[in-house]
Amino acid sequence: MDAAEVIGRCRALAACTEEPGHITRTFLSPPMREVHRLVGGWMGSAGLRVSIDAVGNIRGVSGAGPRLMIGSHLDTVRHAGAFDGILGVMMGVALAQRHPPCALEVIGFSEEEGVRFGTPFLGSLALVGTPLVEPPIIEAIRAFGLDPERIPEAAMSADVKGYVEFHIEQGPVLESLGLPLGVVEAIAGQSRLEVRFNGHANHAGTTPMSLRRDALAGAAEWIALVEREACATAGLVATVGKLEAQPGVANVIAGSVRASLDVRHARDQERARAVAAILGGAERIAARRGLKVEWETRLEQPAVAMQFAGVERAVEAAGYPVHRMVSGAGHDAMIVACRVPAAMLFLRSPGGISHHPDEAVLPEDVAAALAVGMRFLESWRAA
Amino acid sequence: MDAAEVIGRCRALAACTEEPGHITRTFLSPPMREVHRLVGGWMGSAGLRVSIDAVGNIRGVSGAGPRLMIGSHLDTVRHAGAFDGILGVMMGVALAQRHPPCALEVIGFSEEEGVRFGTPFLGSLALVGTPLVEPPIIEAIRAFGLDPERIPEAAMSADVKGYVEFHIEQGPVLESLGLPLGVVEAIAGQSRLEVRFNGHANHAGTTPMSLRRDALAGAAEWIALVEREACATAGLVATVGKLEAQPGVANVIAGSVRASLDVRHARDQERARAVAAILGGAERIAARRGLKVEWETRLEQPAVAMQFAGVERAVEAAGYPVHRMVSGAGHDAMIVACRVPAAMLFLRSPGGISHHPDEAVLPEDVAAALAVGMRFLESWRAA
Repeated sequence: MDAAEVIGRCRALAACTEEPGHITRTFLSPPMREVHRLVGGWMGSAGLRVSIDAVGNIRGVSGAGPRLMIGSHLDTVRHAGAFDGILGVMMGVALAQRHPPCALEVIGFSEEEGVRFGTPFLGSLALVGTPLVEPPIIEAIRAFGLDPERIPEAAMSADVKGYVEFHIEQGPVLESLGLPLGVVEAIAGQSRLEVRFNGHANHAGTTPMSLRRDALAGAAEWIALVEREACATAGLVATVGKLEAQPGVANVIAGSVRASLDVRHARDQERARAVAAILGGAERIAARRGLKVEWETRLEQPAVAMQFAGVERAVEAAGYPVHRMVSGAGHDAMIVACRVPAAMLFLRSPGGISHHPDEAVLPEDVAAALAVGMRFLESWRAA
Repeated sequence: MDAAEVIGRCRALAACTEEPGHITRTFLSPPMREVHRLVGGWMGSAGLRVSIDAVGNIRGVSGAGPRLMIGSHLDTVRHAGAFDGILGVMMGVALAQRHPPCALEVIGFSEEEGVRFGTPFLGSLALVGTPLVEPPIIEAIRAFGLDPERIPEAAMSADVKGYVEFHIEQGPVLESLGLPLGVVEAIAGQSRLEVRFNGHANHAGTTPMSLRRDALAGAAEWIALVEREACATAGLVATVGKLEAQPGVANVIAGSVRASLDVRHARDQERARAVAAILGGAERIAARRGLKVEWETRLEQPAVAMQFAGVERAVEAAGYPVHRMVSGAGHDAMIVACRVPAAMLFLRSPGGISHHPDEAVLPEDVAAALAVGMRFLESWRAA
């Protein structure tokens, strides 16, 4: 099974969708049955013993004794592309078909994106024993014909001694460097907050500049500060992606603004320092402008180190340039890493595009990843 | 009829509303019938000959020959206060009752706020001969029981030789100066635009700061420039009150932003210069950030000079301090000014509040306006 076939299978699975004309495939939605059927068939042809666990993860095992797990997720965002997640599962099947010297478990996680219930990583969390207690999720599992009582059986076997995940980069770095592959050394920690500026809504024509308490002007000054802080700190990304101004009328000064803040860095300490600097800046701006500022933390997720030495050696052995990078996005590898050493290899994303129908992957990069994967499996030893 | 009674009548009319619990009274809405009945009764008691014209303006005439028109509007915004507009009509009735030496026409315009059809000044436009051709407006006139064929008869009589309007300031300036009254020397011209920044939506975690084309970061930099430009130009106000970022998700860099721009100044040349500087700034910011910027002009309204000398003399004669000011908001006086010399007197707005249930006016300020009004009528001569 070559790179073209891996890509062809990803494209074939793109037809499994909740919305005709788009790729949308959420946790245990009806098209997941067809995904299970197709992937299960390919797994069987590759010599894997196939099962579906109680949260809908598809699993295929070869050999016996200590084994390496290879996988990624089956689900997508709304109006997705054809490769995010599923490419890593097809890579696992393709590698299994090449009869590596070690025992394998290829896994397709049923949920990673968090679209259906707002809770991501439902598939991988079941492997590490985090209970899925929310009633709507339990109900969805039952509605799909699975038995939520059996979720504990989905826990990772003690025979699994390592995990590797192939995934598109979902960013422009590898392309900008002209590199096919990136070795992930860590998955960045993440802070998400909602920041609210409160001023005073007033008439845009009759309120002189000196008597305004304009929440949007304050938020704008703060967005510039967020950007400056991120640019001044190596490896930091900070984003204000969502902003709502009230009342939101052309001839009324904005009385209040709600803005999102997303800050990520490979070192938790550096991220905490940046968040503190950004919030301190918000307080200074608000005080100077007669605004009130308040915030709520929505997510605090620490960074997770990857065990990258083996993958790095495999990249070298396969004759490709080594580039270490930090993943700014979360991945299943981050969840699995709390149980076994986990590694990730990124494939270049043309145009840096992901979560979009134009998402793609180059055949030569998939071929490179397959070559690296075989080198990795040939030298992998259970720790 | 003293200041307390003027305020009491405004409060009584606040009960004429489309929404119980709020003050909302739009063009020819059902509560306008009760407004006509009450105002007509008070006009009659003041010795005025009352009529309703074909667009729903209520008009009361006293005396014969050259006359002064006094008025403002009957309609309100949604969830309004009790004084914007209607105070000027009640001032006219109260002055008529004091038997001034000149002939009067007190007018309550049926529409100024533009709420029902998005077109403001429907009442005063009928006086200056601007045809109201839109079918839904014609239909609303007919539905209220008026005859759209007779709109031309609503035109201002050649006997009307001047216009004066009393109105709350709708801003914080008089209060901040501790003054009851302001003499309006001009109504500011106004430019309204929609400005759009287009960049590239991308993953907030995987796109390094150096490879972003963040439309919201660009818009934020531009909002700061809008504010700087306004603060650096005496008498200029510039506002970004509405902003929409797309896709508007916390973990996605904004790919596009639509923002409103509202710029006002008493001198059209100064306003045009400021708009050009603000748009030039937007282009520079966009170019530096790899964004595209485009805009559409939504409104270009020139400034209108008021004939303020007579009102100013009346303020002095009544013993109040004279303060000239520019109206940042549009008013009926602006429309009428194309036919006859028009003047406006502002009354202090406590807290600068308007278009809000807390909108108020101080009894002593109404008393001052009545005293100034009588001085004005006593010395008024048809030009």
